[in-house]
Amino acid sequence: MASNRAVAYKGPGEVEVIDIDYPVFELKDGPGVNPANVGRKVPHGAIIRTIATNICGSDQHMVRGRTTAPVNLVLGHEITGEVVEVGPGVEFIKVGDIVSVPFNIACGRCRNCKERKTGICLNVNPDRPGSAYGYVDMGGWVGGQAEFVLVPYADWNLLKFPDRDQALEKIMDLTMLSDIFPTGFHGAVTAGVGVGSTVYVAGAGPVGLAAATSALLLGAAAVIVGDFNDDRLAQARSFGCETVNLGAGELVDQIEQILGVPEVDCGVDAVGFEARGHGGGEAPATVLNSLMDVTAAGGALGIPGLYVTGDPGGVDEAAQKGSLSLSLGTGWAKSLSFTTGQCPVMKYNYGLMQAILHDRVHIAKNVNAKAISLDDAPRGYAEFDAGAATKYVLNPNGYLDAA
Amino acid sequence: MASNRAVAYKGPGEVEVIDIDYPVFELKDGPGVNPANVGRKVPHGAIIRTIATNICGSDQHMVRGRTTAPVNLVLGHEITGEVVEVGPGVEFIKVGDIVSVPFNIACGRCRNCKERKTGICLNVNPDRPGSAYGYVDMGGWVGGQAEFVLVPYADWNLLKFPDRDQALEKIMDLTMLSDIFPTGFHGAVTAGVGVGSTVYVAGAGPVGLAAATSALLLGAAAVIVGDFNDDRLAQARSFGCETVNLGAGELVDQIEQILGVPEVDCGVDAVGFEARGHGGGEAPATVLNSLMDVTAAGGALGIPGLYVTGDPGGVDEAAQKGSLSLSLGTGWAKSLSFTTGQCPVMKYNYGLMQAILHDRVHIAKNVNAKAISLDDAPRGYAEFDAGAATKYVLNPNGYLDAA
Amino acid sequence: MASNRAVAYKGPGEVEVIDIDYPVFELKDGPGVNPANVGRKVPHGAIIRTIATNICGSDQHMVRGRTTAPVNLVLGHEITGEVVEVGPGVEFIKVGDIVSVPFNIACGRCRNCKERKTGICLNVNPDRPGSAYGYVDMGGWVGGQAEFVLVPYADWNLLKFPDRDQALEKIMDLTMLSDIFPTGFHGAVTAGVGVGSTVYVAGAGPVGLAAATSALLLGAAAVIVGDFNDDRLAQARSFGCETVNLGAGELVDQIEQILGVPEVDCGVDAVGFEARGHGGGEAPATVLNSLMDVTAAGGALGIPGLYVTGDPGGVDEAAQKGSLSLSLGTGWAKSLSFTTGQCPVMKYNYGLMQAILHDRVHIAKNVNAKAISLDDAPRGYAEFDAGAATKYVLNPNGYLDAA
Amino acid sequence: MASNRAVAYKGPGEVEVIDIDYPVFELKDGPGVNPANVGRKVPHGAIIRTIATNICGSDQHMVRGRTTAPVNLVLGHEITGEVVEVGPGVEFIKVGDIVSVPFNIACGRCRNCKERKTGICLNVNPDRPGSAYGYVDMGGWVGGQAEFVLVPYADWNLLKFPDRDQALEKIMDLTMLSDIFPTGFHGAVTAGVGVGSTVYVAGAGPVGLAAATSALLLGAAAVIVGDFNDDRLAQARSFGCETVNLGAGELVDQIEQILGVPEVDCGVDAVGFEARGHGGGEAPATVLNSLMDVTAAGGALGIPGLYVTGDPGGVDEAAQKGSLSLSLGTGWAKSLSFTTGQCPVMKYNYGLMQAILHDRVHIAKNVNAKAISLDDAPRGYAEFDAGAATKYVLNPNGYLDAA
Repeated sequence: MASNRAVAYKGPGEVEVIDIDYPVFELKDGPGVNPANVGRKVPHGAIIRTIATNICGSDQHMVRGRTTAPVNLVLGHEITGEVVEVGPGVEFIKVGDIVSVPFNIACGRCRNCKERKTGICLNVNPDRPGSAYGYVDMGGWVGGQAEFVLVPYADWNLLKFPDRDQALEKIMDLTMLSDIFPTGFHGAVTAGVGVGSTVYVAGAGPVGLAAATSALLLGAAAVIVGDFNDDRLAQARSFGCETVNLGAGELVDQIEQILGVPEVDCGVDAVGFEARGHGGGEAPATVLNSLMDVTAAGGALGIPGLYVTGDPGGVDEAAQKGSLSLSLGTGWAKSLSFTTGQCPVMKYNYGLMQAILHDRVHIAKNVNAKAISLDDAPRGYAEFDAGAATKYVLNPNGYLDAA
Repeated sequence: MASNRAVAYKGPGEVEVIDIDYPVFELKDGPGVNPANVGRKVPHGAIIRTIATNICGSDQHMVRGRTTAPVNLVLGHEITGEVVEVGPGVEFIKVGDIVSVPFNIACGRCRNCKERKTGICLNVNPDRPGSAYGYVDMGGWVGGQAEFVLVPYADWNLLKFPDRDQALEKIMDLTMLSDIFPTGFHGAVTAGVGVGSTVYVAGAGPVGLAAATSALLLGAAAVIVGDFNDDRLAQARSFGCETVNLGAGELVDQIEQILGVPEVDCGVDAVGFEARGHGGGEAPATVLNSLMDVTAAGGALGIPGLYVTGDPGGVDEAAQKGSLSLSLGTGWAKSLSFTTGQCPVMKYNYGLMQAILHDRVHIAKNVNAKAISLDDAPRGYAEFDAGAATKYVLNPNGYLDAA
Repeated sequence: MASNRAVAYKGPGEVEVIDIDYPVFELKDGPGVNPANVGRKVPHGAIIRTIATNICGSDQHMVRGRTTAPVNLVLGHEITGEVVEVGPGVEFIKVGDIVSVPFNIACGRCRNCKERKTGICLNVNPDRPGSAYGYVDMGGWVGGQAEFVLVPYADWNLLKFPDRDQALEKIMDLTMLSDIFPTGFHGAVTAGVGVGSTVYVAGAGPVGLAAATSALLLGAAAVIVGDFNDDRLAQARSFGCETVNLGAGELVDQIEQILGVPEVDCGVDAVGFEARGHGGGEAPATVLNSLMDVTAAGGALGIPGLYVTGDPGGVDEAAQKGSLSLSLGTGWAKSLSFTTGQCPVMKYNYGLMQAILHDRVHIAKNVNAKAISLDDAPRGYAEFDAGAATKYVLNPNGYLDAA
Repeated sequence: MASNRAVAYKGPGEVEVIDIDYPVFELKDGPGVNPANVGRKVPHGAIIRTIATNICGSDQHMVRGRTTAPVNLVLGHEITGEVVEVGPGVEFIKVGDIVSVPFNIACGRCRNCKERKTGICLNVNPDRPGSAYGYVDMGGWVGGQAEFVLVPYADWNLLKFPDRDQALEKIMDLTMLSDIFPTGFHGAVTAGVGVGSTVYVAGAGPVGLAAATSALLLGAAAVIVGDFNDDRLAQARSFGCETVNLGAGELVDQIEQILGVPEVDCGVDAVGFEARGHGGGEAPATVLNSLMDVTAAGGALGIPGLYVTGDPGGVDEAAQKGSLSLSLGTGWAKSLSFTTGQCPVMKYNYGLMQAILHDRVHIAKNVNAKAISLDDAPRGYAEFDAGAATKYVLNPNGYLDAA
């Protein structure tokens, strides 16, 4: 019988590669599986041999112990792989297909899926709309930082790459389609980025760099990325962005120095609730408040950065229950609009795939993607948490040895 | 020489009808006029003999003393009238035209106006984008609760009614085009209301009733209006809305009782920063937080209700500087979007005029419009502030005697 | 074993109720079934006991002998019913559900379905994108003017009504959700109809009346319907439309008489290629040319009326190969836009259902829906073809006896 | 008194540089001036000293004698210049500003302008909506292939470049903002081009090359340009397009060879009514019919190429009255949409200017812009008509000597 190994959460600050069951077409009980999902049949599923599976900033929320993730929760929602088995209800996806798995799990049958809102599917998470692999409180679908993973509703969820060889050649780019590239793109789109826009992206982590990449792909005239981390800012400059080190002065002044005006058309929050202030401490509202300051009247804010309903590790009582102290009056006076939430990956991944396959964008280079072995995952988590300007891509089955 | 009389702010809780200058094609110094606007030439302006000019909820913010409005500030930004004189730069508007004046003053020449964002015109308020007649801190354009008023950039700003007699016949409806009808409509549109939507409108004041009217006009399946004021709720029921008295139980439960589900597709905040909680005290974030609670995942919030950057009379320090404690995590988990700001009236007033003129909507009836004399304005302000379910329309020149 | 009876095409001008096989979860060979679809397994399907199934104008194209429809083709693509059996791949639809079946068959797994373009699904018709039940050259899915019918991809395609009793009570309205109501609505939406629009709808057949109904539901200020058939025009007037009899004078003059201007904002073609000119003969381009004439610059044309690639019965060689002589220069000078094609029903049917269930629209009354028995179908076809101002709804299983 | 020289139409095939009056703030009588416009006061105008003024393909329609253009009509609607005088009604544009003039003249006061539809302004052309400088039948506004030109409604129409030196440095790019760059961009936008799209552009003249440039700027994955002219196709390849020589085989086959599939997502018609068929003769419907063939179901066609209501030189009677024989059934079966008309330049020119100023696009290089003297205009017209792969930019005042 086939074996399987995966990265699991072991407690605050700790991840480990453990043995887990090889997937079957049923969601079995296990750490973090919602009782109402236990025993759920998945004849519509496909089993994927993982080609590439990336460590995500939102995994870090769990690993830092900021959530109620249970020990042995298998992590990983950024999955690209080869189909090795399909359930009896799968019609169009075939064994051997090389596919990208959107991180949001969606049924393709509910009202929201029919409206392309796959980030808030009504049928996959018994607790609320929306789900993801390997994530606390999301229904319990087993994570994909593993050798093998089960993808439900495979005909709906999977994006098949048209050509195997071409896909494997560009695999380090294509692996970003499962989450950060569409997520950054959604941030840019919902911030209203279009041809000629000026854009400020808060945060130079992988999602921020993906948002900046997306803004350029959408025709932005100027993209400014802000962070406290110089290595990550250097990464942003490597593909044509301007940057501001937030420790080096007021954001608004630095923007004025770059653009000649103290404001931008569009703002993207690629940070979320674990934002830090100038003093270094957490200041969960600081990114949104600064975005309202620097976004011009009539602009929009795309907010792919995660905000939570409860954060036991929050700096104060308000933060712990997910309340933010927002200067909404500033936004109101400027007629700003705000878009929050998980990116509905399926809205964007086909077009972004086409852009990658036709060499119009180089997302792997822009986020400094680096393949490491599955066993090196703990090191990848630690380095990423320490601020490395690197997107770590796990290579559980050796496909990336060539890449 | 022609005389002029107008409603002026005299101090907290006090308004009075005073004599003011008859307008000329120049913005003269006076209470609240921005120094940079003093002496500004207005050859593109038109002088309007007021037919109808309404008392607005946002006027009350000033009258309650919640702003820095100076004594003798002439109030009034909801203006409908007859053109009696045009400046030398006016080409298409003619003396005798019956016109609606959008409350936001716009130049028709800046980038924002060219993009239909007339609520944040760049050229009329020296302090920031956006302006209005008779409003504190908005550039100092003289208010229109007066016999006569100057409208700058008349060719751009004025909406001419096609037929004088028809206009006078429907004048009580048409007077709502200057502000509350488009403002409510903008709230509904930005909340994503379409055919078949379920909608919750917070607030049964005139803007809330206009938003509810708009939602029905847009084809909403069900519109629920919430307030603490039973008279206003009765008004909402009079034209087909469902209602909830917020004092009578949890909002979410009452919605479930009406719809069978505890949520709506679309939420409109027609209250703003002076929101009150169940205890009766001010609770500036309560409306937005409750809208995030009851709006379904994937929904949108239209926020025509005013939020300010500073509120000297706020309940606490946070409120005084315009900070709201928002449960943004709730909204984020549901992928909600939010649209704030002044309604860009010119985007909607033509279509709404057509709907009125073709008898497709009866906004005056829905908001319980009532004409009173200019001299009765102080009484109108007081009754409205006390919660009357009435939209007060001033009648400074007798045109409404017949209506 | 269960029996089944259905309306079949027997030759030009002739339809007959015949015995056919009770459906199974496989597409068997039969009249009009595409060879590549023969034997196709349908484990994702549901068997529907028909409650209501309507005769459509596009059925008439076949019955008039204007297509290559084979003898014994089972007709019918407007289907509403009760689920009596589901295949093993069906998860959310249950036996006993009362459902509406969109006339376009869609897989819910291809790129187009994922983009809500269910009218051009890539996986159901081997010949080209797009399919429908009971239609020539559309893959061969068996028609639904029958006692029982198979619906593939049931979880995706079926719209379940929330409450059985409520559904049966409003069934004559709800049966219009399978085709003509969304089709007319799509025509209105793609014609740009919004609040305050003026609209001209060419054709007062059921789709035209549905488009007019939709325009009103969308907030149109004035809706004008044109036809040569006075009974159908009377039907349009019955719910608030203006009408023009095209035989009574120039369209543009009649519009001017009604609106005061000789043009409308939006135009809907609810006629298609079998259009007739003033002389009574076919004039396939006449509707589109006249719409370009009367639609104001900047307007849009929604074209739900069917145009074909080949029409053996066309008036001349050009018509026979589907070429139209269009005055495109007229449209270009006015910057018009044009939207053609099958309505993607699933984009609209949920919202329209909500509008029906909340009593906001009365489509059955507006199109003069009339239930007749399955055996009366031949009479229904004949009367409809003769110009009856009636929408015929077949009642194969007695559910409508009460309605 | 100041003199003025300009390019004028002298008869079929003939243009000449003639002396004309220096502009004043009034539209005087002259060749092609609409009687209703004679004597029209233009206090809102600005007089521009031309920096760059380009020869356009649509000028060629007149010069070829395909219109009723009168002798001595001053040509030119692609104008960039320096403001040397402003009328008394101009408030924000200043003498010395370097500005781009949108080719469509718009009043900034009518309903269409307020809706951003400046290509069909209601107030500038007495005959119909829409106008342009130096064009037959467009109201009679004097053309700008001249040393000086009058621009009405200057505050509305003119796009001011933020910095004089920067503007002059990039002037060969910026001069494309008056027409072909926005026109090509409009073609791409209305064809639905977005990130990852595949696009076919019919025609490799300047508008086609601008559409291709725009498609790439919008993030298209692959852009294919088709023409019979190899030099122009080479130009398209120079900036990353694929090309097809239409004389070398069937379009659909050539597309399949490039993309692996015989269709594209988006189609742009950058040719218009003077299209030629394979045989070399005029075939006015051939471009549109071939675009319907190669555009995938669900796609859109952007049609910036000009179609006329009458063409005395048309190949047959139908062509002479502007009738096209279109296979609309093909488009209908694919659910295609079509957008026609003049580009509303003001919708796009600000963003495209930003893209140019921030070095994100190199339109002058892409269309092979070449500055020539005003006196060389006749040669420029002739070479362009002969198929030169060059965009000719006239240099009437020596500003471009450095460029």
